[in-house]
Amino acid sequence: MDHRKARVLPARHRCPSLEVWASEAGTVGFSVPPSISRNPAMVNEARGLSGSHPRSEGSGSGSESSRDNSRCSTPGLDPERHERLREKMRRRMESGDKWFSLEFFPPRTVEGAVNLISRFDRMAAGGPLFIDVTWHPAGDPGSDKETSSMMIASTAVNYCGLETILHMTCCRQRPEEITRHLHKAKQLGLKNILALRGDPLGEEWEAEEGGFNHAADLVKHIRSEFGDYFDVCVAGYPKGHPEAESFKEDLRHLKEKVSAGADFIITQLFFEAATFFRFVEACTAEGITCPILPGIFPIQGYPSLRQLVKLSKLEVPQEIKDVVEPIKDNDAAIRNYGIELAVSLCQELLASGLVPGLHFYTLNREVATIEVLKRLGMWTEDPRRPLPWAVSAHPKRREEDVRPIFWASRPKSYIYRTQDWDEFPNGRWGNSSSPAFGELKDYYLFYLKSKSPREELLRMWGAELTSEESVFQVFEHYLSGEPNQQGCRVTCLPWNDEPLAAETGLMREELLRVNRLGVLTINSQPNVNGKPSSDPIVGWGPAGGYVFQKAYLEFFTSRETVEALLKVLKKYELRVNYHIVDVKGQNITNAPELQPNAVTWGIFPGREIIQPTVVDPVSFMFWKDEAFALWIEQWAKLYEEESPSRMIIQYIHDNYFLVNLVDNEFPQDNCLWQVVEDTFALLNGPAQKERGTEDP
Amino acid sequence: MDHRKARVLPARHRCPSLEVWASEAGTVGFSVPPSISRNPAMVNEARGLSGSHPRSEGSGSGSESSRDNSRCSTPGLDPERHERLREKMRRRMESGDKWFSLEFFPPRTVEGAVNLISRFDRMAAGGPLFIDVTWHPAGDPGSDKETSSMMIASTAVNYCGLETILHMTCCRQRPEEITRHLHKAKQLGLKNILALRGDPLGEEWEAEEGGFNHAADLVKHIRSEFGDYFDVCVAGYPKGHPEAESFKEDLRHLKEKVSAGADFIITQLFFEAATFFRFVEACTAEGITCPILPGIFPIQGYPSLRQLVKLSKLEVPQEIKDVVEPIKDNDAAIRNYGIELAVSLCQELLASGLVPGLHFYTLNREVATIEVLKRLGMWTEDPRRPLPWAVSAHPKRREEDVRPIFWASRPKSYIYRTQDWDEFPNGRWGNSSSPAFGELKDYYLFYLKSKSPREELLRMWGAELTSEESVFQVFEHYLSGEPNQQGCRVTCLPWNDEPLAAETGLMREELLRVNRLGVLTINSQPNVNGKPSSDPIVGWGPAGGYVFQKAYLEFFTSRETVEALLKVLKKYELRVNYHIVDVKGQNITNAPELQPNAVTWGIFPGREIIQPTVVDPVSFMFWKDEAFALWIEQWAKLYEEESPSRMIIQYIHDNYFLVNLVDNEFPQDNCLWQVVEDTFALLNGPAQKERGTEDP
Repeated sequence: MDHRKARVLPARHRCPSLEVWASEAGTVGFSVPPSISRNPAMVNEARGLSGSHPRSEGSGSGSESSRDNSRCSTPGLDPERHERLREKMRRRMESGDKWFSLEFFPPRTVEGAVNLISRFDRMAAGGPLFIDVTWHPAGDPGSDKETSSMMIASTAVNYCGLETILHMTCCRQRPEEITRHLHKAKQLGLKNILALRGDPLGEEWEAEEGGFNHAADLVKHIRSEFGDYFDVCVAGYPKGHPEAESFKEDLRHLKEKVSAGADFIITQLFFEAATFFRFVEACTAEGITCPILPGIFPIQGYPSLRQLVKLSKLEVPQEIKDVVEPIKDNDAAIRNYGIELAVSLCQELLASGLVPGLHFYTLNREVATIEVLKRLGMWTEDPRRPLPWAVSAHPKRREEDVRPIFWASRPKSYIYRTQDWDEFPNGRWGNSSSPAFGELKDYYLFYLKSKSPREELLRMWGAELTSEESVFQVFEHYLSGEPNQQGCRVTCLPWNDEPLAAETGLMREELLRVNRLGVLTINSQPNVNGKPSSDPIVGWGPAGGYVFQKAYLEFFTSRETVEALLKVLKKYELRVNYHIVDVKGQNITNAPELQPNAVTWGIFPGREIIQPTVVDPVSFMFWKDEAFALWIEQWAKLYEEESPSRMIIQYIHDNYFLVNLVDNEFPQDNCLWQVVEDTFALLNGPAQKERGTEDP
Repeated sequence: MDHRKARVLPARHRCPSLEVWASEAGTVGFSVPPSISRNPAMVNEARGLSGSHPRSEGSGSGSESSRDNSRCSTPGLDPERHERLREKMRRRMESGDKWFSLEFFPPRTVEGAVNLISRFDRMAAGGPLFIDVTWHPAGDPGSDKETSSMMIASTAVNYCGLETILHMTCCRQRPEEITRHLHKAKQLGLKNILALRGDPLGEEWEAEEGGFNHAADLVKHIRSEFGDYFDVCVAGYPKGHPEAESFKEDLRHLKEKVSAGADFIITQLFFEAATFFRFVEACTAEGITCPILPGIFPIQGYPSLRQLVKLSKLEVPQEIKDVVEPIKDNDAAIRNYGIELAVSLCQELLASGLVPGLHFYTLNREVATIEVLKRLGMWTEDPRRPLPWAVSAHPKRREEDVRPIFWASRPKSYIYRTQDWDEFPNGRWGNSSSPAFGELKDYYLFYLKSKSPREELLRMWGAELTSEESVFQVFEHYLSGEPNQQGCRVTCLPWNDEPLAAETGLMREELLRVNRLGVLTINSQPNVNGKPSSDPIVGWGPAGGYVFQKAYLEFFTSRETVEALLKVLKKYELRVNYHIVDVKGQNITNAPELQPNAVTWGIFPGREIIQPTVVDPVSFMFWKDEAFALWIEQWAKLYEEESPSRMIIQYIHDNYFLVNLVDNEFPQDNCLWQVVEDTFALLNGPAQKERGTEDP
C-alpha cells in the first residue's frame, strides 16, 4: 500500500500566501506548441560544459583554477559562468563558502508580477546562489501568462540573471504533458527542476493507473527524457512526510528519489536544529550523500504561522507558542521574534558544519529574510558588478559580454529584443552573427511601466504641457531629484527601466545645465582612465583589474540645435564620434566604416580584455525606433488625442533628433560639455561665435 | 598574320639579372597536386569582400568611411584591409595619394632566396602598394622549390605581408597546366596575376594550335575559370611591342587584353616622359580607361644597361649614351647618374597628373630604387606599426589580429606553423577554432638561419663552450651589442628571426643583469600605461589611439633557480601570472583556468579594442617544443657529437625550464626584475632570505 494514500492535506494553491511544502500542487491542463521538440544536441552540449576546460594541458602542480570562488559571475571572467547549479554547489562546498537561496511563489496579478520582478532585482543584490519558483496549479503554471510559474521563473533567469529552479509536479498529468512542460522550460533557459509529486484531488491520495504517483517517477522521467540536461532537486521531510507511515519509510522514499537521479535535497521547514541534524544523520545512514539544504521559515506574522501549522501538520514547539500567543496582534513584534528565532537556528545549523547553504521560504516578502541574512553576515551586497550591465542567466547567453550602450537603462528591453539570437557576441560586437533585433511591441513598451499608473505618471511628467520647455523641466527634475511644481519627484522617464546609475551623479551639474537648454539626455557616462575594478561607482569585474570608459552622451534635441552642433563638431572631427538620427532615419555620422566604438573596457589579471559596451552604429538604428516610440507610447498617450500636451510630445517625436557623442580622448577631460556649450554659443549670436571656433 | 611572329628576342630566363619585360618567358612542365581543386565558394567570398560594409545603414551625409587612406593596414582598423588591389588603387587615385610598386625576379639559389626575403622585409618598410615576382620558366616556376616564382611570391604575401602580383605566361602550356598553376596561386593566398604571353622557343614566334597564343587568351582564361577572383594586370609597351607591326596595331592588342578583363596596365621601361605621355594619350584614344603604371628603370650599371638594350630593342637616347660611355667602368658614378635620371623622369611623370603610381624594375637591388624614392619623398618609413607584429597579406589572414606573444621574435615560424588554419582569431584568442599548430620541422628551423654560415655562428656563439656560464655570456653579448672575446658581435640567437625590438632597449640594463645570473631571456616587453599610438618605440596602430602593455619576461633557467623562483612567486600570487615548463612538458602555472592573458592592447577612436598579443597557455606548449628544439637544432649541432660544447647545450636543453612571467599591474612599476632579484637573494643564502620574503 502506498503510504501517500494517507495524505489529507489541501492543495497548496488554495493558500498561495503560504507557499511552502506543506503540500504539493496538483495537475493542470496545458499544452506546449509542438514546435518545441526534443533536442538531444543540447543535452550533449550541457555535458560538454560540465567538463573541465577542453584546452587544459599539463599536470599543473601549481594550478589554481578554482581560486576565484566569489559570487561574481562575470561571463568570460568567472569559473562559475560555465557551471551548472550542482557544480556551483560542489565548488562552494569545497571552498567552505556557504550560500543561501530564496523561494518565491507566482503572484496572482500582473501588477503582482511586476512587483515580484522588482523584488527579484533587489534580492539578487544580496547574492543568492539560486531562487526557486513554486508550481502553481491554479495559475496555469506552464502557460505564457505573466503570472504563470513558467513565466515567472523564465523572467528570473532571463531578465534578472538569477540561477532559478522551477518546481514541477507530476500527479494527475500525462507523461506527454510533463515532457512538454520540461521542453518549454528548457527552451526558456531553465536548467533546474524541483521534482514534486503534487497534491491529491480529494482528501486522500489515490494512486493513478498509468500516471506518475511519486516524485521519484518524475525524477526518472526527467532523466530518461532529458538525460543530464536538468539539475534535479527533491524535497526532504526532516520529521517525515505527514503521509508517510514512518520516518524510516519516508527516508526510503527519499533514497529512491535520489537514486532516480536527484542532485540535491531541500528540506521542509523545521523549528529546531536538532530536527535537521537527526535527519541528516538518518540520511547518511540510509546512504544518501547528496547536499541537503535546510529550509528556513522566518515567522513573519501570526496568521501565516497558524496557516502553516494547519497545512504542514508540523508541531510548533511550546516555547514558540508561548511567545507568539501574547503578541499575536503585534505584527512587528512577531516579525522581530521570528527574525531572532531564525538567526539562532541558522547559526546553530552553520556551526554544525553539516549545512552548505540555507534555503529561505520568503513568502514573497523581503524584510525578514534580508534581515536574517544580514545578521548572519551572509547578505553581502557586493558593490562590484560582474559587468556594467545585468548579466542574464540563460545558458545561451552565458558567453555574452558585449552589448550596445543604448539599452543601458533598459536592459530588459535589450534581452527581450535579442531573445531569439542563436549566439551572443563574445569578445567583439562586430563578430555577432545575430544583428537582427526583435520587433518593437507596444505590449513590451508598457509592460515594465505598468507599476506606475497613469495618474502617477501625469503627476511626474505634467498633467498639462504648455511648451517644449515644460518637457525640458521634466528631464531637469528627473536628474535633480527635486520635486516639481506639483511637489512630485520625477522618479522615472520613459527611457529608464532602472534607477539613475551611480556614475550619472558624477556629472549631475553638467547634465542639469544642458537639459535646461533642451539637450534632453537619456544616457551618459563619464570618461574613466584606469580606475580599480573595485571602484564603488564605476568599477566592475573581478578584483585586481582596471576599468576604462570613454565619455558618452546621448540626447534628443531640436533640429536647430543639431544644425549648430554639426558645425561645432567639425572642430572635434578627430576626437568625437557622433551619430545623429531623426525618427525617419536620416543618419549623420563620422563613424569610420560604421564600425562599433568600444566605450567601456576592463583589464584583469590573467584574462583577455573585456569590452562590455560599444556604440554600435547598426544597433543604434534599432534603438532609435524604440527611443522615439517611447515618446508616443509612454508619454504622449497619457494625454487626450488632439490635446496641446499630446501635440507637444508629438512635435518633439516628429522633429527632434536623437544624438550620440563619444569623446575618444579618454585620458583627457571630457570635451562633450564643451561641445554643447560651443553649440549654444554659436546659436546665441555672433558675439559668442568666436569662442565657438576656438580649437578644442 | 600574327605580328608576334616577328619576335626574335631571347627568353628572359636566359638573363636572370635583367628581369624586365624585354621578353616574355616560355613554358615549363609542372603539375599541381590534384588535391588543390577549384573552389567556387572562395570566388563568392572574394566578391563579398569587395563590396561595401554589409551592415552599412543610413545615408551618412557626414560619413567619412574613406578618410583613413594612410599606408597603415592594421587588420580590424584599416579600410584597405578588406580591399583587393584594384580597390586600393581606386581609393588612392580618388584621394590623390600616389603609390609605388617594386618588381623582383626569383633567385637562383636557396641562399639567394633567403637574401631576397630579407630584402622584401627591408623594402616593405618604405610602403610599396605591391610587389611583383616574375615568372621564371627555367626555375620550375610553379613548383614548391624555394626559388620558384610561386614560392617567392607566396613568401612575399604570407611571410612578408606584401600585396603581391605573380607573373604568369601562357604560351607553350596546356590550359589545364595554367589552371593548375592558378589554383595553386589561389590556394597560397595570391590574388593578383600579371598575364603575359611568354617567349618563343626559337628565334621567331609561331602560333600554336589549341594553345594560348596571346596574353589576352590568358586573361580570358583566368576570367572564365576564376571569375572575378584574381586582379589581372597586363603589360603595355609605350613604344609598341618590338614584334608588333605598328604602334597602332600593338595598341589594339592592348585594348584586347583590357577588354578580356585586365584591371590595370604596367608599362615596359622607357627613357623619356614624353614617350609615356604619348602612350597614355593613345590608350585613351583607343578607349583604354584602366590605370596605367609607368615602369621605371634606374640605370644601375653599364652591363645591365647594355644587356637591356640588346634584349628590349629599346633605343637608349644619345644623351644618355654620351654620359654613360665615358664612365662605364665606374659603377658608383653610373648608379648616381641613373638615380638622377630616374628622379627627373619620375618628377616629370608625377607632375603631369597622368600617373597614379610608379613601378620600379629593381633588378633585385635596393640601393638605387630606395634612393630614387627617397628623393621623390615617396619612401616614407612609417615608424608606426599597424600591429606590434608583422601582418600577413594572405586573404585568409586579413582578419587576424591576435597572436601569442611567444613567436614575437620568430613571426615567420608562427605563420608557417599556423598556415593550415581555416580561420584566424579575430578579437579574442580564446575564440580561435584552430588551436592546432603545424609540426615542427628541422627544415624550417634551419631555413631562415641559412644566411649565417656555421663558421659565423661559431664565432658568435663560441667555438668551444666550457660551462653553462659561457652560454650566459653569449646571451649577455647579444643584448649588450659588445663584441665577445673573439671580437665578434652576437647579432642573433636561435630564438630570433628578427633584430632586437626597439623596446628591448628600454630594459637593456635589467636584461643584462639577469642574463649574467643565468636567467637566459628570449622574449620580453616593458609595461606601458597608455602611450600614444604614435610613440616611436612602443606605438602601433592608427593615429589618435593609446597603447598599453603588461610587462612580460620569458627565459630559460636552471631547475635550482626555478625552485627558488616558485617560492618567491607565492608572494606575487595575485600580481604575477606564470607558466613554467621543462622539455618533457611538466607545466607549473597559476593561470586561472588556463585562460589567455592579454599583454598588449590598444584603444583607438571609433573602434573596438584591439588586443594583438596574448600569453596563451595552450599555444605555449607548442612554442615550448620549438624553443627547446632550437637549442639542439641551431646550437648544439654546430659542435661535434660527444664534444663538451655540445654536451653543455644538451644539458641545458634537458634540464633547464622555460619560464614566462606577466606582471598584471601595468599602471605600476614592473615588478618582474624584483621577482628575479628576490629569487637570487633566496638562492644566495639565509642572510638575504629575509629580504626575499618581504611583501612586494
